[in-house]
Amino acid sequence: MTDALEDIQSGPDDRNIPLRQVGVVGLRYPVTVWDRSSERQQTVGTFKLTVDLPHQFKGTHMSRFVAALERHRGEMSLETMPELVDDLRTRLDAERAHVRMEFPYFVRKAAPVSGVESALEVRCWFVGDAEEREALFTLGVDVPVMTVCPCSRAISDRGAHCQRSHARISVRFRELVWIEELVEIAEAAASAPLYPFLKREDEKWVTERSYDNPVFVEDLVRNIAARLRDDARIQWFYVEAENEESIHTHNAYAAVGSADLE
Amino acid sequence: MTDALEDIQSGPDDRNIPLRQVGVVGLRYPVTVWDRSSERQQTVGTFKLTVDLPHQFKGTHMSRFVAALERHRGEMSLETMPELVDDLRTRLDAERAHVRMEFPYFVRKAAPVSGVESALEVRCWFVGDAEEREALFTLGVDVPVMTVCPCSRAISDRGAHCQRSHARISVRFRELVWIEELVEIAEAAASAPLYPFLKREDEKWVTERSYDNPVFVEDLVRNIAARLRDDARIQWFYVEAENEESIHTHNAYAAVGSADLE
Amino acid sequence: MTDALEDIQSGPDDRNIPLRQVGVVGLRYPVTVWDRSSERQQTVGTFKLTVDLPHQFKGTHMSRFVAALERHRGEMSLETMPELVDDLRTRLDAERAHVRMEFPYFVRKAAPVSGVESALEVRCWFVGDAEEREALFTLGVDVPVMTVCPCSRAISDRGAHCQRSHARISVRFRELVWIEELVEIAEAAASAPLYPFLKREDEKWVTERSYDNPVFVEDLVRNIAARLRDDARIQWFYVEAENEESIHTHNAYAAVGSADLE
Amino acid sequence: MTDALEDIQSGPDDRNIPLRQVGVVGLRYPVTVWDRSSERQQTVGTFKLTVDLPHQFKGTHMSRFVAALERHRGEMSLETMPELVDDLRTRLDAERAHVRMEFPYFVRKAAPVSGVESALEVRCWFVGDAEEREALFTLGVDVPVMTVCPCSRAISDRGAHCQRSHARISVRFRELVWIEELVEIAEAAASAPLYPFLKREDEKWVTERSYDNPVFVEDLVRNIAARLRDDARIQWFYVEAENEESIHTHNAYAAVGSADLE
Repeated sequence: MTDALEDIQSGPDDRNIPLRQVGVVGLRYPVTVWDRSSERQQTVGTFKLTVDLPHQFKGTHMSRFVAALERHRGEMSLETMPELVDDLRTRLDAERAHVRMEFPYFVRKAAPVSGVESALEVRCWFVGDAEEREALFTLGVDVPVMTVCPCSRAISDRGAHCQRSHARISVRFRELVWIEELVEIAEAAASAPLYPFLKREDEKWVTERSYDNPVFVEDLVRNIAARLRDDARIQWFYVEAENEESIHTHNAYAAVGSADLE
Repeated sequence: MTDALEDIQSGPDDRNIPLRQVGVVGLRYPVTVWDRSSERQQTVGTFKLTVDLPHQFKGTHMSRFVAALERHRGEMSLETMPELVDDLRTRLDAERAHVRMEFPYFVRKAAPVSGVESALEVRCWFVGDAEEREALFTLGVDVPVMTVCPCSRAISDRGAHCQRSHARISVRFRELVWIEELVEIAEAAASAPLYPFLKREDEKWVTERSYDNPVFVEDLVRNIAARLRDDARIQWFYVEAENEESIHTHNAYAAVGSADLE
Repeated sequence: MTDALEDIQSGPDDRNIPLRQVGVVGLRYPVTVWDRSSERQQTVGTFKLTVDLPHQFKGTHMSRFVAALERHRGEMSLETMPELVDDLRTRLDAERAHVRMEFPYFVRKAAPVSGVESALEVRCWFVGDAEEREALFTLGVDVPVMTVCPCSRAISDRGAHCQRSHARISVRFRELVWIEELVEIAEAAASAPLYPFLKREDEKWVTERSYDNPVFVEDLVRNIAARLRDDARIQWFYVEAENEESIHTHNAYAAVGSADLE
Repeated sequence: MTDALEDIQSGPDDRNIPLRQVGVVGLRYPVTVWDRSSERQQTVGTFKLTVDLPHQFKGTHMSRFVAALERHRGEMSLETMPELVDDLRTRLDAERAHVRMEFPYFVRKAAPVSGVESALEVRCWFVGDAEEREALFTLGVDVPVMTVCPCSRAISDRGAHCQRSHARISVRFRELVWIEELVEIAEAAASAPLYPFLKREDEKWVTERSYDNPVFVEDLVRNIAARLRDDARIQWFYVEAENEESIHTHNAYAAVGSADLE
């Protein structure tokens, strides 16, 4: 029956405009990712899947993107993503393919004094960009942390304003880096880590540790960048941080990439 | 060590203002839910957990909400939720407890002609409200469907505007109703169901079926309400629908509850 | 020409299901509101406009909602809103009409020490619910403020965690209450107000004042409720607050209404 | 008093990491923009304001960004933006400054047959990137339009699925281009424009016109790109479009920039 239906997308186009990207966005699909302790986390991916489109074709076949995801569902990782990207390139007769998957991921945290455990959400992303001879894969994490303002502490007789902050780290690597490692790097760069579950003795520890360790948003990205610069596994990185300033309704922001350090 | 730390929250309060709700919101936690085919889906819950607070107490112990969730993680369903709500009430010495969990859930869909399979996301929620002698549990689903406008079809010589719509159904029941059943009720009430993966022959089917079956947003909620009214298992319901009008940037909206039919 | 086009919405319906609400949502429209200093603020309203629909009618005329808004644009206030709500009821032959308008509003703030001025955004809403013999009008504001945790301060040797918080206040009144008054009530109930523009001497003041004045989320709503309870102009209120806890990724929440104090 | 307070941000930093961007994000401020008919629209800008930071400085002075905005509020346009960007560069001793302002903007629309008027929201953005010797200014618009699927129309015996789409156009120009012109280009490239207010005769027109003029998401961006390519005022452009597919829950996407046509 399909054969009888006109295939408009495969028709010619005479506007002489090749497209950089054509595909689907906002596609939500169940996926499974592996964590460092070799356990599987079933989670929900939000996908952007695109290919380039030469000028002579009218359209792409959008259903093939979903078909590729359906075939590849099950384990999804930076190791299996090359297959998905290649599959797209091949089946859509494209020169370039691009896949971005964002997903919530949970890391187990033990509170610093009581040791009580809980699960902290970290938003992550995998990105694959492939051409015929080259492919780039990027891992990203958005780590929630706490920052105390050094200026506020220095000029005030008591107290110091602090806030929830987000450190967003994207890396490309020569050798595997775990999400958990990036979380640890971000937490070490901040005034203190965040924990879903804290008893009073833990709250005292977090309050004092963060007060003893104030960082500006500039320090947060620099501390992370310094660690990534010295890690031989890391080929490329980009780091952004945002402080949800408790004394304002806007956020403070800083960004630095490996290219800025060359 | 904890004992040495002052417990401010348990201190007295003299403003004579009892609080209706105190607790945590926006808490994201991994959960597992069961589907109709007896398989487990691991997903991500977004929680609101609250209790009431009598006027004489200064505050509640927020960490206990996370502790309750940590103890109860694993299977979460309308059958296990009573335990979580009761646990909150007891451990927080409260008269009333309220739990709301929203989560993405996937149903397998077979395309109408080709039969190709894919996974459709349905946003769901479980709500539990418990007092000493009474507890109410609510199941909710937000089902994406397609609607064709009857007016546009009737007045136009060709075509008819259509759009993505959302049917949001909340029910309380005497006997278990599955998420999948509510999805089917919403889909039958619309012009056509949605599918992540459609081949050309399926797209033809969906286009023609929806054109043959136009419904206003008013029809969508009435069709659903009529089905729920006649289902002896359903004790209470509330139905809302929103059409993402393709000819406007605002949405059309309709709502009806079981109380309106009495 | 219109006359020749079939009016499907006015047709009969035999499902015997009256609808509680039918209308439009997510409609964005330019509006002008008045502030306390008698100046006009042009801003953007996000509207929900609905009426009830008796069981015997198939549908409502959605375009009339936009028409009503178009006629009433220009000044929008709790004083002009009754006209808009009445207009909807009359033109749509309904028994009940409901209008909700949310909008960003700016209040001028002078920094506490330097006196430098800036504009603070406060999200507001007007709600009108009218039946033939009764109409209720509600004013709401979402005021961003700062809170310092009393527990963290009491148990820690130095510092105290603090965060951005939101106090959401809805009121119905016998005599006009200005948005600016509700903002002041919320700010006085918190550890400190927020300011877009602070010099160093102001930051010192905010840090110290908030540290000297710690409040739980429970205190924030109780302080507001106590003020509203004692204000003879206020007929009804509902107060919610959310603390964007800097030591967690979830928020603390509390709510109380005038009904809880009776 | 200020002089007595330590200026930590101006202190030295020895990590040898220059920052690409430091500043504030999510800052909401009232602004006034001019429309083609020489009327002023007061609206709400959401700002990102950043500068670079040389490696030897510990931090930037965040309050100066808000101060710059406070000084420049009043008229904001692509003509006045260079002053704001220059002001930031100078006052923050930076080599580069970046300003992004997003804002809702309303264009008056007359319905195609009845001529009834209403206001359509178009989300816009101004971006300024300045270095010592070069400055780039970008105007962007997100235009909501309607698309009918050519494939669905061709293969179906009746009807065709359609949806709300968004065309996002960014341009840099040699000579002023109005927001209203970009809106018209996007609308002409789609199956039909959107209108907040349509009478029945208008709805018939929109339904038939869109059915007669089906476009894929690929066509939408190509039609726009072809127009911009031929406009001598346009120096650079980037066009994206997203179709909120009424038969799926994900969106179709296409993108092309002037660089792809060289």
